[in-house]
Amino acid sequence: MPTILGQNQYGKAENRVVRITRDGDTHHIKDLNVSVALSGDMDDVHYSGSNANVLPTDTTKNTVFAFAKEHGIESAEQFGIHLARHFVTSQEPIKVARIRIEEYAWERIATSDGNSRFIGADEVQHSFVRKGQETRVSQITYDGEKWEVISGLKDLTVMNSTNSEFWGYVKDKYTTLKEAYDRILATDVSARWRYNWTDDGQRMPNWEKSYEQTRTHMLQAFAETYSLSLQQTLYQMGSRIINHRSEIDEIRFSLPNNHHFLVDLEPFGLKNDNEVYFAADRPYGLIEATVLRDGVEPKIPVDMTNL
Amino acid sequence: MPTILGQNQYGKAENRVVRITRDGDTHHIKDLNVSVALSGDMDDVHYSGSNANVLPTDTTKNTVFAFAKEHGIESAEQFGIHLARHFVTSQEPIKVARIRIEEYAWERIATSDGNSRFIGADEVQHSFVRKGQETRVSQITYDGEKWEVISGLKDLTVMNSTNSEFWGYVKDKYTTLKEAYDRILATDVSARWRYNWTDDGQRMPNWEKSYEQTRTHMLQAFAETYSLSLQQTLYQMGSRIINHRSEIDEIRFSLPNNHHFLVDLEPFGLKNDNEVYFAADRPYGLIEATVLRDGVEPKIPVDMTNL
Amino acid sequence: MPTILGQNQYGKAENRVVRITRDGDTHHIKDLNVSVALSGDMDDVHYSGSNANVLPTDTTKNTVFAFAKEHGIESAEQFGIHLARHFVTSQEPIKVARIRIEEYAWERIATSDGNSRFIGADEVQHSFVRKGQETRVSQITYDGEKWEVISGLKDLTVMNSTNSEFWGYVKDKYTTLKEAYDRILATDVSARWRYNWTDDGQRMPNWEKSYEQTRTHMLQAFAETYSLSLQQTLYQMGSRIINHRSEIDEIRFSLPNNHHFLVDLEPFGLKNDNEVYFAADRPYGLIEATVLRDGVEPKIPVDMTNL
Amino acid sequence: MPTILGQNQYGKAENRVVRITRDGDTHHIKDLNVSVALSGDMDDVHYSGSNANVLPTDTTKNTVFAFAKEHGIESAEQFGIHLARHFVTSQEPIKVARIRIEEYAWERIATSDGNSRFIGADEVQHSFVRKGQETRVSQITYDGEKWEVISGLKDLTVMNSTNSEFWGYVKDKYTTLKEAYDRILATDVSARWRYNWTDDGQRMPNWEKSYEQTRTHMLQAFAETYSLSLQQTLYQMGSRIINHRSEIDEIRFSLPNNHHFLVDLEPFGLKNDNEVYFAADRPYGLIEATVLRDGVEPKIPVDMTNL
Repeated sequence: MPTILGQNQYGKAENRVVRITRDGDTHHIKDLNVSVALSGDMDDVHYSGSNANVLPTDTTKNTVFAFAKEHGIESAEQFGIHLARHFVTSQEPIKVARIRIEEYAWERIATSDGNSRFIGADEVQHSFVRKGQETRVSQITYDGEKWEVISGLKDLTVMNSTNSEFWGYVKDKYTTLKEAYDRILATDVSARWRYNWTDDGQRMPNWEKSYEQTRTHMLQAFAETYSLSLQQTLYQMGSRIINHRSEIDEIRFSLPNNHHFLVDLEPFGLKNDNEVYFAADRPYGLIEATVLRDGVEPKIPVDMTNL
Repeated sequence: MPTILGQNQYGKAENRVVRITRDGDTHHIKDLNVSVALSGDMDDVHYSGSNANVLPTDTTKNTVFAFAKEHGIESAEQFGIHLARHFVTSQEPIKVARIRIEEYAWERIATSDGNSRFIGADEVQHSFVRKGQETRVSQITYDGEKWEVISGLKDLTVMNSTNSEFWGYVKDKYTTLKEAYDRILATDVSARWRYNWTDDGQRMPNWEKSYEQTRTHMLQAFAETYSLSLQQTLYQMGSRIINHRSEIDEIRFSLPNNHHFLVDLEPFGLKNDNEVYFAADRPYGLIEATVLRDGVEPKIPVDMTNL
Repeated sequence: MPTILGQNQYGKAENRVVRITRDGDTHHIKDLNVSVALSGDMDDVHYSGSNANVLPTDTTKNTVFAFAKEHGIESAEQFGIHLARHFVTSQEPIKVARIRIEEYAWERIATSDGNSRFIGADEVQHSFVRKGQETRVSQITYDGEKWEVISGLKDLTVMNSTNSEFWGYVKDKYTTLKEAYDRILATDVSARWRYNWTDDGQRMPNWEKSYEQTRTHMLQAFAETYSLSLQQTLYQMGSRIINHRSEIDEIRFSLPNNHHFLVDLEPFGLKNDNEVYFAADRPYGLIEATVLRDGVEPKIPVDMTNL
Repeated sequence: MPTILGQNQYGKAENRVVRITRDGDTHHIKDLNVSVALSGDMDDVHYSGSNANVLPTDTTKNTVFAFAKEHGIESAEQFGIHLARHFVTSQEPIKVARIRIEEYAWERIATSDGNSRFIGADEVQHSFVRKGQETRVSQITYDGEKWEVISGLKDLTVMNSTNSEFWGYVKDKYTTLKEAYDRILATDVSARWRYNWTDDGQRMPNWEKSYEQTRTHMLQAFAETYSLSLQQTLYQMGSRIINHRSEIDEIRFSLPNNHHFLVDLEPFGLKNDNEVYFAADRPYGLIEATVLRDGVEPKIPVDMTNL
């Protein structure tokens, strides 16, 4: 046979599960988009079409919804761990399970007679507005022995309106860019961080708290870095997280440089004193890098975008 | 000539203008997407290609950026009023100007040593995270005499996890739906409201405050209505606004019914006690209606969606 | 009651129905996205939540799928006529039905041993590739007496790489644009045309043939017009259709001017002889107009876009 | 220093370059979206913000446009080769260049008096309609010694309306799916194939012809395979390409199973004889696999999607 099968995986993608937990009149919500990818002894289905080893993707979907009832959804990571363990341990041909989850955050709607956002009157303890901002993501992989948990976020749009410069760069025959000593720095943060929890024997991180803290460090490092290049800001964001969160060994960023060009108003007799900008769509700079705890082997894939 | 020209308009769409205002070290940001549409004596350009009456769309773009400097951006509505007035009063062939604006909200990033979100230390008074949630919209139209201002929002996603029923409906031969006595009610609010400010002689509304208050009433009415149908909830949202905001005479909503179907877990021996839902994409119910102050003539167009 | 209900409508949007017709081994496909909007005596459901007059949106969905079996799908327009008539004539409270349809075109995949694209061997008479290009659209409205059929297309992207100029326009203090004597003209055509068929007593147009012919005239007029402005091209496209298709009385276009800017290569010692262009996203010119048969009253809504 | 920098890359993404070539009155068009990613000695810019080794992303953008003039665009792959070689050989700190390109196809508009689609009269040899269908993609990587060229396509939507079954699969406690003996098989093909051209000394493939032939084999294998599973169809598509195209050693597919569910019409007294389907959006099956020439080492990354 001149051709052979290489790496392969399959499952149901984008299962949109919403889990409501009722604590008296106070409801809690988890809103996830869960994708399952299974791999193992799957040669036959590719070569001959025999499905004897194939758990249908429809079954993987049913399992997601059933597990939302059976185990609840404490966190995206914990939910993914339940699912991945189940597929690998219950189906002999399945050797590796990878669960990817997007999570959408909600906050409560305040009542008309209360001021507090989070302790409103009873009658709106079941009313929510979607938070917007970033999408939280997680990927849980299990091969029957070791766990790999990579969490992160995407589409967290941030901007510094000053404290950013860019100069002293290489100039070749195609260089026309003017040096900048006070520019806007803006990006849509996409980040993935890898936990050093890999064994059932280890103490598991507090996934919810870890996410909140990591996000906060990321925003603060972005805000507090006086930037000479987006690469420098990226490294500061990553190293602050590695330094403060011992449960995380590696983080990778993909940061588009959302250009805000100072508009030339001189033709109209006006001076633009860093006031009026044109927010451009394309092209954009794209800065990508991994930051690691010293001595650790990188495992987060380099490709976080198709561009 | 067997064919004639009907209504026509032109201009530059989607000018992405970002305006930074520096108050010492504290920066303020306005982030808009501005679209200009002009109409008037434009027969010749259509019939013969003569551009003698045509102010180029490129010029309308330049004007947007120049006005951000000359007038600042106090509010989207006020900015649109400056622009519309300019086009109609400065160009004889232009009889009507319609300015449409989308606004994206930002909030400040807190410092690492502060707790307050809004009074951080000096060094992050220039750092922002995009708020997400809804996009604020506004349409300002001027014909040289009268103003029409229609403001609104879109993509404000809300959910009640209980206090919603649906029963007692018409049943024909194609009806299979089961009555529901406790369901999730979720929608992405798209709303447009019309101000009764139409003359320069009238006192102008406080556009920023009006937006915040209208949004708050909308959310509270959604949360506090025990709903027998999405139509009922819509009407409550609209009438609460008309009753509380004297500057608004009319509001139209387009509310998709974002279905959350209770998953049947019985095949797996599980009881789903309003806990696990499947969030469906398409199809969705689509409920649209206008709510008016009694005695007022409706003017907001019926079509807020292409579907 | 200080607030009242204005225009309202409801129904199930975006029902994705695919209809396969088997003619021996040769299959035919119709791939539609159908949205239903009903209006009539619906005050109660808004004021009190009584659903006594409400045919559920779920039922309107079922009806779409059942009618695909009962009536087949000869054309989008004919299918919409069946649906609209049904809702208005079978439900007393429903006074007007509006059906909107998007249609996606498919073409056959050729066999490996045949050359012809359309008469392949039997074994691929059931294999299709989606055609891409434009989406065909249609809107059918019925009030129990009169029909209004507005058809059209969107996202048909076209380009002339020459035979386009732009000069002789108004210049004010914000004008910086240089006149152009040989530019690219490109747009994504969005068009809606209204048929003069309004009564069951009239002979119905051949909807499929009318669409194909109208699309062809539109493309040819775009290609064959030496353009001094996009407005002129728009008018030529419209008037050619009105002049050639007696079943159509009115057509409205929304044409973004997809700017292709000649790149300045002089800093690199290169001359750009209309060879290298930057295709910009935003902002874009937006040209909108109606072309009418003389003596006809316009009925297509002005707003075809939210921008 | 407890944290270190890992893999990193940067450049300008999504440069939208359109190249017109004039052959007398006949114009030819190449329409690309080009993304540049460079890596090398870039520690300093991350650690200290020194840009001494950084060629600005703005310069990489300028280079794309200048090269479109200097070298023309014979094919996406050839254009990427020019660019990658330039960056690696002209800038000492840059060790690896990766160019990613999307290409959008256009076809000519026929004249009103001609029948032929490709030999119309002179006046429309400059008029084009965008072809729609798939986006062609290419990735060219150069490290100063070896080349890696991975080409492909995405969003090629195909459907077989019969000759597809699915049965004989594993059934566990969460399985409810019914076996299917005649179902619709539909997918949006995303594929990447790797060329065995790696050295300047080797004869370069004919990139344009290779793309056309590979696409044709892919479509025919999809159409001509009687399918017992989407995995089987995928493998047939891949092995037919490897067997017919000696320049290609490896191909990876990501195939969503675009479910078309047979609608249950029995409640309405109708029999659905494989005629009426509901086209679902989410969730969907997702089948991914690599097919290789025997003896070859796989190099295409496993992750072609974020889900």
